[in-house]
Amino acid sequence: MNPSDLERQLAFLREIDRLKGIVRLTPLIDRSRRENSAEHSWHLALYALVLAGHAAGTVDVLRVVKMLLIHDIVEIDAGDVPFHVPSTHAGQAERERLAAERIFGLLPDAQAAEFRDLWFEFEAAESDDAKFAKALDRFQPMLHNAATDGGTWVECEVTLEQVKSRCRPPIEGGAPALWTVAAQFAEEHFREPPQES
Amino acid sequence: MNPSDLERQLAFLREIDRLKGIVRLTPLIDRSRRENSAEHSWHLALYALVLAGHAAGTVDVLRVVKMLLIHDIVEIDAGDVPFHVPSTHAGQAERERLAAERIFGLLPDAQAAEFRDLWFEFEAAESDDAKFAKALDRFQPMLHNAATDGGTWVECEVTLEQVKSRCRPPIEGGAPALWTVAAQFAEEHFREPPQES
Repeated sequence: MNPSDLERQLAFLREIDRLKGIVRLTPLIDRSRRENSAEHSWHLALYALVLAGHAAGTVDVLRVVKMLLIHDIVEIDAGDVPFHVPSTHAGQAERERLAAERIFGLLPDAQAAEFRDLWFEFEAAESDDAKFAKALDRFQPMLHNAATDGGTWVECEVTLEQVKSRCRPPIEGGAPALWTVAAQFAEEHFREPPQES
Repeated sequence: MNPSDLERQLAFLREIDRLKGIVRLTPLIDRSRRENSAEHSWHLALYALVLAGHAAGTVDVLRVVKMLLIHDIVEIDAGDVPFHVPSTHAGQAERERLAAERIFGLLPDAQAAEFRDLWFEFEAAESDDAKFAKALDRFQPMLHNAATDGGTWVECEVTLEQVKSRCRPPIEGGAPALWTVAAQFAEEHFREPPQES
């Protein structure tokens, strides 16, 4: 490996430090603040390690972990688009595609191609690895919402039917057992009377 | 997999959300705030994926990534102990051992044993995988310090000789090429006249 490869690798590793400044809507479980996309990605990688036995298909855990570690890096350029705020979604796919080209392109060519391909595979959500990774990315915020009296369900004023129609296909498709518990969490929340403020 | 295994897995995944609230001394590269241990662990996992070709020995990338994703989880109970503040280190090994037993013990038995074993292997820093993981854990803060006019080197008032004596063995032992550039970064910083405030 020549020196310029190492320089490109370090430039990439410095650049992605900015993902720590991209703030999502999802609250931390202790409600002290909102989650950022870097720590979210760490958490999801652990979801993959711990929950791999619940994947619908046969998965390669290292590939799933790689996808989850890099899946939000495009937000450094494109920003985070909240899942339950559809009005923000227009144009996001193209902004993210351009971000993937720029940011992964900082790496040596072979690594840039590997990360770009993995990111496109995650976005397409067609392979068993990508389906499981997507399921976890939809499941984790449901766990946080259930643990915080509704979290973004309350903030975005979504109904139980909207939660189910948006979350069931990706979660059930990648990890059916996780959809069973996620649906229970949502039903318990929406069954309760609203908290008085 | 029986239902209680899934319950234990979700209890663990909820508990480790607290790592996002453990703040390290190291600054983010944009100097907006200090880094927390969850986003630090995400960053290190990407260091492992990107820099695996620089490892001194033959490494299993998935094992190295797992080690780095879990290496700081013990800080939820034991707190972060700054590398360049040796006066805080007394008793920390025992506090971390107890934390590993409690927190990894939330998982189903087989997974608890796997994570505990990986964490002890990382701490011992004897296997090729653990040596490389430790090297990255020491290298990343040097990159941040170099990018922030000295970072914790300035804050902890350490000398170039202290940086070299503390960082060279773990980094050179796990990734010699990374020590070469890290030493250059440190020498450049300590050669410059102090910044006027």
